[in-house]
Amino acid sequence: MGACHVIFDGGSKPIDFNRSEAEKLRAAGTFFWLDLEQPGEEDFAILSDVFDFHPLALEDSENFGQRAKLDEYGDYVFLVVYGANPDDDRLVEVHCFYSEHYLITLHRDETPAFTELRARYAKQEAPLGDPPRLLYRIVDSLVDSFFPVLADLDNRIDELENAIFVKADDAQLQEIFAMKRLLVGMRKAVTPQRDLFASLMGGVDQLPGMTEEDERYFRDVYDHLIRISDLIDTYRDLLTGAMDVYLSTVANRTNVVTKQLAIIATIFLPLSFITGFFGQNFGFMVRHIAGAPAFLGLGIVLELAALAGLLVLFKRRGWL
Amino acid sequence: MGACHVIFDGGSKPIDFNRSEAEKLRAAGTFFWLDLEQPGEEDFAILSDVFDFHPLALEDSENFGQRAKLDEYGDYVFLVVYGANPDDDRLVEVHCFYSEHYLITLHRDETPAFTELRARYAKQEAPLGDPPRLLYRIVDSLVDSFFPVLADLDNRIDELENAIFVKADDAQLQEIFAMKRLLVGMRKAVTPQRDLFASLMGGVDQLPGMTEEDERYFRDVYDHLIRISDLIDTYRDLLTGAMDVYLSTVANRTNVVTKQLAIIATIFLPLSFITGFFGQNFGFMVRHIAGAPAFLGLGIVLELAALAGLLVLFKRRGWL
Amino acid sequence: MGACHVIFDGGSKPIDFNRSEAEKLRAAGTFFWLDLEQPGEEDFAILSDVFDFHPLALEDSENFGQRAKLDEYGDYVFLVVYGANPDDDRLVEVHCFYSEHYLITLHRDETPAFTELRARYAKQEAPLGDPPRLLYRIVDSLVDSFFPVLADLDNRIDELENAIFVKADDAQLQEIFAMKRLLVGMRKAVTPQRDLFASLMGGVDQLPGMTEEDERYFRDVYDHLIRISDLIDTYRDLLTGAMDVYLSTVANRTNVVTKQLAIIATIFLPLSFITGFFGQNFGFMVRHIAGAPAFLGLGIVLELAALAGLLVLFKRRGWL
Amino acid sequence: MGACHVIFDGGSKPIDFNRSEAEKLRAAGTFFWLDLEQPGEEDFAILSDVFDFHPLALEDSENFGQRAKLDEYGDYVFLVVYGANPDDDRLVEVHCFYSEHYLITLHRDETPAFTELRARYAKQEAPLGDPPRLLYRIVDSLVDSFFPVLADLDNRIDELENAIFVKADDAQLQEIFAMKRLLVGMRKAVTPQRDLFASLMGGVDQLPGMTEEDERYFRDVYDHLIRISDLIDTYRDLLTGAMDVYLSTVANRTNVVTKQLAIIATIFLPLSFITGFFGQNFGFMVRHIAGAPAFLGLGIVLELAALAGLLVLFKRRGWL
Amino acid sequence: MGACHVIFDGGSKPIDFNRSEAEKLRAAGTFFWLDLEQPGEEDFAILSDVFDFHPLALEDSENFGQRAKLDEYGDYVFLVVYGANPDDDRLVEVHCFYSEHYLITLHRDETPAFTELRARYAKQEAPLGDPPRLLYRIVDSLVDSFFPVLADLDNRIDELENAIFVKADDAQLQEIFAMKRLLVGMRKAVTPQRDLFASLMGGVDQLPGMTEEDERYFRDVYDHLIRISDLIDTYRDLLTGAMDVYLSTVANRTNVVTKQLAIIATIFLPLSFITGFFGQNFGFMVRHIAGAPAFLGLGIVLELAALAGLLVLFKRRGWL
Repeated sequence: MGACHVIFDGGSKPIDFNRSEAEKLRAAGTFFWLDLEQPGEEDFAILSDVFDFHPLALEDSENFGQRAKLDEYGDYVFLVVYGANPDDDRLVEVHCFYSEHYLITLHRDETPAFTELRARYAKQEAPLGDPPRLLYRIVDSLVDSFFPVLADLDNRIDELENAIFVKADDAQLQEIFAMKRLLVGMRKAVTPQRDLFASLMGGVDQLPGMTEEDERYFRDVYDHLIRISDLIDTYRDLLTGAMDVYLSTVANRTNVVTKQLAIIATIFLPLSFITGFFGQNFGFMVRHIAGAPAFLGLGIVLELAALAGLLVLFKRRGWL
Repeated sequence: MGACHVIFDGGSKPIDFNRSEAEKLRAAGTFFWLDLEQPGEEDFAILSDVFDFHPLALEDSENFGQRAKLDEYGDYVFLVVYGANPDDDRLVEVHCFYSEHYLITLHRDETPAFTELRARYAKQEAPLGDPPRLLYRIVDSLVDSFFPVLADLDNRIDELENAIFVKADDAQLQEIFAMKRLLVGMRKAVTPQRDLFASLMGGVDQLPGMTEEDERYFRDVYDHLIRISDLIDTYRDLLTGAMDVYLSTVANRTNVVTKQLAIIATIFLPLSFITGFFGQNFGFMVRHIAGAPAFLGLGIVLELAALAGLLVLFKRRGWL
Repeated sequence: MGACHVIFDGGSKPIDFNRSEAEKLRAAGTFFWLDLEQPGEEDFAILSDVFDFHPLALEDSENFGQRAKLDEYGDYVFLVVYGANPDDDRLVEVHCFYSEHYLITLHRDETPAFTELRARYAKQEAPLGDPPRLLYRIVDSLVDSFFPVLADLDNRIDELENAIFVKADDAQLQEIFAMKRLLVGMRKAVTPQRDLFASLMGGVDQLPGMTEEDERYFRDVYDHLIRISDLIDTYRDLLTGAMDVYLSTVANRTNVVTKQLAIIATIFLPLSFITGFFGQNFGFMVRHIAGAPAFLGLGIVLELAALAGLLVLFKRRGWL
Repeated sequence: MGACHVIFDGGSKPIDFNRSEAEKLRAAGTFFWLDLEQPGEEDFAILSDVFDFHPLALEDSENFGQRAKLDEYGDYVFLVVYGANPDDDRLVEVHCFYSEHYLITLHRDETPAFTELRARYAKQEAPLGDPPRLLYRIVDSLVDSFFPVLADLDNRIDELENAIFVKADDAQLQEIFAMKRLLVGMRKAVTPQRDLFASLMGGVDQLPGMTEEDERYFRDVYDHLIRISDLIDTYRDLLTGAMDVYLSTVANRTNVVTKQLAIIATIFLPLSFITGFFGQNFGFMVRHIAGAPAFLGLGIVLELAALAGLLVLFKRRGWL
Repeated sequence: MGACHVIFDGGSKPIDFNRSEAEKLRAAGTFFWLDLEQPGEEDFAILSDVFDFHPLALEDSENFGQRAKLDEYGDYVFLVVYGANPDDDRLVEVHCFYSEHYLITLHRDETPAFTELRARYAKQEAPLGDPPRLLYRIVDSLVDSFFPVLADLDNRIDELENAIFVKADDAQLQEIFAMKRLLVGMRKAVTPQRDLFASLMGGVDQLPGMTEEDERYFRDVYDHLIRISDLIDTYRDLLTGAMDVYLSTVANRTNVVTKQLAIIATIFLPLSFITGFFGQNFGFMVRHIAGAPAFLGLGIVLELAALAGLLVLFKRRGWL
């Protein structure tokens, strides 16, 4: 397993997570926050034994790739929330066991936001006495981590659009497609999370020890989640638009090129036919076009007349 | 910070916003409207100290880019509303602290509608005695500012459509795309605002001191917001349609040009083959096509017959 | 202002609408229907003074381009309904002030349905005693006027589809686009109207003096509005389909034309190369191809062999 | 009018529908099912007089093209339901007047399902004593008639898809479009019918004399309607997919053909230029290329070198 | 019929399903699970007689191709659930009759999950005493069988996308289309199943003997169904995206190829015209171009100048 930190009223320290440490924490009776990075099988066994969690909650907590959700189990809840980070899929999945006596967070990916938060609590800048407020801070830091990631996407889409207008190529398509996948993934993480906080606001779900003032704070989280989910939808729309622009631009370019080809062929195929005609070896013809008038009339004037006729034709069709 | 105006029962005046002015206003006990343009950090500190606003409300009010919303905090509410102006993103975001004793509006962009409103109150054309009615006037002026902006878009879409039918080019695509972005932005501003007034109408949210007669006025605002949101959706549909027309027009033009190319090649490649054939230097052939009949028969009639055959073919295919 | 008609229990007559006439009608105490075509500022002033309407209702009634809606104001309601007529946008907007004592209808466009209705009441074929029934008849005549307009659209879409399969051109695209706009406009008029009658059926809104039997009649109007709104959606779908067909047809035609071009070029470019080859002035070559066998072998058989080879190739590719 | 059948407790017989027969049936007091095919004006007059139906119900029953609906009128209901048959639009519209004393069905198109049902009742295989069960059987037979029609569509879509991959042409497009229209029509008939039975299940609407056990049966009908409506949506999706495949296939074919054209032109235009060059009549050149080395070097090797160069180029571009 | 297994408290055994066995099981009074693979007409007759099921439930159970649903019939329920397997349509449909006394499962396709479950019960690893828990295990094993099938699809879509960028061909289109059909089918199976468990959670439907603790387990199933349904929607989106990429890629390739063609034609058609010009047999011209300067000037320099001019033109258009 990875690092493990425990934050309690007196400060914050990294610990070696094992059965006796867990039992000590449980027995102490004061609220603590236990953060486990990359928990292993053994760790789950300890949690199961010491905290007596429901098998379904434990099973869910072991399997990453859950939907954001809040399952109530008597005096504790099991909570799955998502944040963003700069890795491949841009997502961090955090599993929380939360009660009025403890908050246990489990995650596989790194969560820079937590480091900062731990530092604040270590310096005792914020009292730990208010469990829902701590949960709020954790969820808030996760939710707010989406904003910079989305701002990056916004800029990248802008650049892509401009690049497509300059020169459309496959690499752009691949990037559009990759960003769409990313947004599909983020949407799948954010939408249930938004709905979760909606039902928390509506009183459908309940957090242990939550006061009306805490609710104001979670309402703020909810508000941010709506904005994030709106942004994701907006970017999806913009990417679809970029795809349309790609297609339209390419179609337009093909049109321009084809027109160019048609003009060249329409001018030179007839003219070449004329030169070909007088390049034939019919003795009769060769004998009759030997003089200067024939060359000027049939060799020069006829070509120029044909050219003039074609230019008039193009003018009329609006091709020139 | 930018300009600051205070409107009270006796008139309207620009003031230098500072702590003592704020305390004087607060202490006076009569209803006033304080409008702060481009508020700075200092101004928020004063608001926090003098009016004792909730930290969450203050935090939101400092960060522009909020969703339209109404958060109730005991005897005052924090309200985010959007209006339109002619700048880049066409949007003005206004943050309001509203209670029965004061209305404080904060905004970064210029709001021409407010200037006009201040003038009316300065001339005492309207009494300030009715706080909800003032809030209505402010919101109404913001909401109605969307109509001229949308009417401009409507005209521009009309022009674009006609231009595409005449000659499709990349600049139109870019404009369509830019307008789509604009509408996406406006939609994101208007939809939550519409829903906000819907829940105000439905009694889910409440404004301090609002009477049934005031409700009629806010119902009118709600009605306008529905129309605006419908218009935005309509224009999005029209832009999507314009994109389709772009693609269809280009595809059709390419078809016309390709057909022209095919006709030219189908006529002149076979004819040129014939002239090429009789341009060969096979001594046997040259000796046998020396006379006038060979020239007329193989040089002229054969070409004309080939041409006639091709024209018949085109006729049958409906290409001419 | 345009024509003004008043329909009362004894019959129907055109009147000059002015203050005294209005006051007389108001004072008479019996139910009447007053129809004002193209009402002017003056007319609204009279209505305001004599009938004492709410300023919001009056403001709405002066501005055409409202959403269909029903606003209750104590003992009267303000109602906006739409019908169809053959003009440019196919829509008639009618504003109604309705109470148990009067029905005042205001409109700008001509409403042929009203003429007919007036004639019926003038001949006293129907008693005026039942205000909701009169309102029903007016709304019903407006709503039913959509059906012939939609039937026309249906026929036109059918014709367009067939025309596209025969020969796709820009004019069809423009017509598809124009019809889409028309439908978008009709949808914007019909959908809120449908929802209005839905909430009238659901008891959310109420009409003064409406009985259960009247409700049956308005349920019928509601039913028609659902059908109209379904038809509009259907036609929008069909137009989208027609657009797709346009694109598909053009793409297919381009494919056919391009294939034709490729076949011609693939046959004649190689053959012409051969004739070009033997048209070269290399003395050595010219001396060696002077005899009949050279002409037959290289000039005729080689060309025919090349042609045969190409035809076999096309056959294999399924191009012939 | 068309055929008329009456089914009563003792059996089933075709009758001449007229006023006296109608009155006799009405007076008998026992439950009967009267089925009128292609009812005429006269028939509606008799129904109006003898059964005293509400004018709105009668008006609706005379106009085919209604939405599926259930209108309650005191002790009877007016019901519009749709079934499928093999005619042009695949739909049969049946209007029912249903009470605990009679069931009157009116339809214009043939309904094979009814013939079978009549035969069963004539043979007294099922007692007529239970009016809701009879109504269930009628509705069930109509609803189930959609399944074979939809299965046919399913097969046809499968065949179309395969055909498009083999060779895309306009006839397939026309068929896709025709099937889309058909499905749009069926959807318009089925969706309101499904919602009707949903509100019957939810207790919003009520059928005279319906027991809980009857409800189980109607729940079954509702279940089938959901499946039908799902199938229609599925087929619409598949047709949209088929359209996409059509476009993609055509685009791909055009690409293949264009590449072929480009290859041919890229090979033969340069080679032909070389032969053209040495076909020129510059005396100086002709004199210098008279020998065998010139022919071999410039006439043969140069061409082969050019060809080799082009093939290398194609290889690099992945065109061969 | 296929295999039949019975699982009771003491273990699990395959049995020959017949009337006397069925009656014995029914009479024993202890809970049992009877699993019938590919039940025949006869088997349904036995079920009908021995268990006295409602004719509607029996009819539904005989017809595979039902929607997932839960129909309550007094003390037992009829349940239709779907799982996944590796066959053609990836679906297994299981019909269950469930009461507190028995669970009877009927299916046509093989269900590997059941074999495993039977093995567990045979070894008495889990007590059979808790009927809802058994039902949960069965449903859970069916629902979870979707995950590996969907993971396969995910991988395949990834591969397809990459393949399209490398080389777009019809086989990919056919596979995209086939996968879309598969997902449409899975969606039709999963969506109603998800809604079924939603209404089971919401208390709309009820399972005999279900406790609050059982509900937790079914909530877990519900959670998985939401994830599956989300995944299906995601893959549909990705396939639509893949289709778009296909079209965009092909359009782009066509553009590249057409440009290549246009460049070749624009270079060689003019140059060939020049060679053709000097290949003409005008005696006058031939006599005047006999010297070395003519050859160098008109034969070499003129060609090179033309070529240089064309290259400049391409440069300006950004084609090179």
